[in-house]
Parts: sequence; C-alpha cells; structure tokens
Amino acid sequence: MTDSTYPDEIQRKRDRARSERDQLDAVLDAGRVCTLSTVIDGRPWVVPMLYARDGDRVLVHGSTGAGLLRHVAAGTPVALCVVHLDGLVVAHSTFDSSANYRSAVVHGTAEVLRGDEAWAALNALSDRIIPGRVAEVRDMLPKEVAATIVLALPIVEGAWTAKVRTGGTGTPEEETEAWMGVVPITPVYGEPLAEEWARERPVPPSVRRLVGPVS
Amino acid sequence: MTDSTYPDEIQRKRDRARSERDQLDAVLDAGRVCTLSTVIDGRPWVVPMLYARDGDRVLVHGSTGAGLLRHVAAGTPVALCVVHLDGLVVAHSTFDSSANYRSAVVHGTAEVLRGDEAWAALNALSDRIIPGRVAEVRDMLPKEVAATIVLALPIVEGAWTAKVRTGGTGTPEEETEAWMGVVPITPVYGEPLAEEWARERPVPPSVRRLVGPVS
Repeated sequence: MTDSTYPDEIQRKRDRARSERDQLDAVLDAGRVCTLSTVIDGRPWVVPMLYARDGDRVLVHGSTGAGLLRHVAAGTPVALCVVHLDGLVVAHSTFDSSANYRSAVVHGTAEVLRGDEAWAALNALSDRIIPGRVAEVRDMLPKEVAATIVLALPIVEGAWTAKVRTGGTGTPEEETEAWMGVVPITPVYGEPLAEEWARERPVPPSVRRLVGPVS
Repeated sequence: MTDSTYPDEIQRKRDRARSERDQLDAVLDAGRVCTLSTVIDGRPWVVPMLYARDGDRVLVHGSTGAGLLRHVAAGTPVALCVVHLDGLVVAHSTFDSSANYRSAVVHGTAEVLRGDEAWAALNALSDRIIPGRVAEVRDMLPKEVAATIVLALPIVEGAWTAKVRTGGTGTPEEETEAWMGVVPITPVYGEPLAEEWARERPVPPSVRRLVGPVS
C-alpha cells in the first residue's frame, strides 16, 4: 500500500528502500551463524559467531574473555556477514556455472550493552536462535549476564548490502548437449538427541518446532 | 605410523601438528562457501565466495571486475573463514546453551595465478565444488580464463586456526527438570532441477552424486 501524500518518485524510492531493507532482514533472519570481521593492527581478523537481528540492530555475544570481541567493544569498526548457499547452478561449462545464494553484510561500530539492556538483548538473541526457549527455562542469573559481552551493531541506511541470486543457468549462447540445472541446498534440523539423563523428559515445544528443513 | 628416527617428543609434536592440519583440511574440504575478509582504507571488508582447498592452498575466484578481489590481488592481507553450524546445544539455561560447529580461519596474502596455473587452479576449484564435473563438460575457453581472477591463499603453519565443538551439554551444576540435548543440523542437497530445455537429458553422474545429506 502506498502513501498518497508523497509524490510518486519519492514514494517509489521509499518503497524500493523498504523492499531492499525487507530483503536484508529476510537474509539475516534466515541464519544463525555469521562471521564478524574487524581490523587489528591493520590486519583482518574474523570469528564466526551466533547472531540475531533485533529490529534495527544485529546482536552478537561472547565471553568477556574473548579477545576479538574486546576490540570490537572498544569501537573498532566491523563487517558482519551472513551467507546462505541455496544451490549449485550447473551450466554447460564450468565458466557459466554458478551458485544460488543470499548474503548480507552490515558495516558499523557495535555498542556494548549493559544492565537491563544486556539482559533483554541476551534474551532476544536466545529467543531468535531457538524461538520460545527463553520462556521454557529459568531466568538468567546476574553472574551469567556479567560474564557475557553483548554487542549491538546498528543497521544504518547506506552501511549494509544484501545480495540474492536465484534461478537457473540462463540460456546457453552455444550449441550444447549438456544437462543444465540447479541442485538446491537446504539446511535440515534433525531429530533432537537427548542427553542420557534427560531421555525420559519430553522434548520441549521450542526444540520440537526446529526439526525439519529450514523453510 | 610414527617415524622412529625422531625422538619421542619431536615425534609427538609432529603427530599433533599433522593431526591439527588434518582437522583444518577436513573443515575446509567440507564446505563450498567462505567469507573473505580484508582491510580497505583501514576498514574491514568482507565478501562471501566459493572456494576450494587444493593441497597447501585455498583457491578463490571471481570476475576481473570485482573490487574487493582486486585489492586482494594487489597483496592486501586477508582472513578467509569457513564455518559449519552442526547443531544447537540446548541446555537447562540459555547461558549454558551453545552450538556445535567446525570453523577454520586462514590468514595470509593471496597470490594471483596466471596462464597455465590459472587454468589448472580453475579446474581444481570447479572439480572440488562439483567433483567430476570438469571431465563432463568442454574445456574452458582462453577468454573465460582471461575474464577471471584466480587467487591462491597459501596455508602456512602458524597462520591458521581450526576449531571444532562437538558433543552435548555436559552435566548441569544445578538441579533441573529441563530437557537437554542437541539438535543436529545438516545441509542436504536436493533433487536436481533441470532447465526446461534439458529435461530430456540424463542427470550427469557428478550432479547425481551430490544429492543427499552432506556426510
């Protein structure tokens, strides 16, 4: 639905910006692991991390002992990357072969969250990684929050990119008898494996809901 | 098998280094997409890329027009990261919950390959992404090789890390009735989807072999 109080051109730009931002959100929300890149002594450093989008920011967390996170907490710029490999695109030649993927990169400087903000952010992060889990378990203890660095990377217009490749090979520009097509790739969450002492306990709904292919 | 010409301590170090290097290779070989991080004007940059390990180097490629690759080709240091999210580790508390993963980071400076070396590296890359495919299709054309940057990042002792977390939650240090366990995650390659004009053609063995869960 468009807002008729804006001239068409501005409205189109707003719609397009919204649509691109929706795409970014979709790419971020489909993942659970990112890479967090930063610069230390002029050199690139990277660590994989769990993450979650929470509105206009991306949350990551780690132990207060984690070296790279301390740099990031001190205000070193980061580039957070998420990529989903959705398929291999098999053409008649290796040159024309490709991959289907969705990727996002968010640039910026992360803010350290403290106190109630850290508490809420850690719960948001947990609840996006396993939706519904927070309500099933005891509250975090103050010492647990204190042992954790929680960082919020703001999603700022102009400081992120989202890229998506979908579809097939396109029509070859040469005669070929080769098969062409796409092999889709989907992460599948398998049957939950209970710890030995928990085998008689029911699998909680939050865990049960994870099982199956990621849609 | 150990080499008895070396004193035990040196042999143990050699065995351990070999075992760690084997782990790195296993993590790299299990993936197809990495993130390539570098530094441009003091800021972190990252792009997701297809990659393949080829012996003691990691190969990546891209269009000669790709901005970040040109920086990397000019000798800017990189950090290449691969991560596999293997499962969610669900504990009695969000704090004790975790993830099973395998990750690798390779630091260094990439070398631009040219001529026959580029040709061989592109074939090696293609043949690790879809094993057997190179033999099924026509040779690359010289103009295709010319339109592609191929980079080799050497795997140098002391300039990489490989990390693996496996297993369950461990025993909780408090009384709890909560379910605890692991939800495994596996990428699954689905049934090949042929392009419309290729539907009557047989799915080639290289493509057929991809189908199923990644072991």
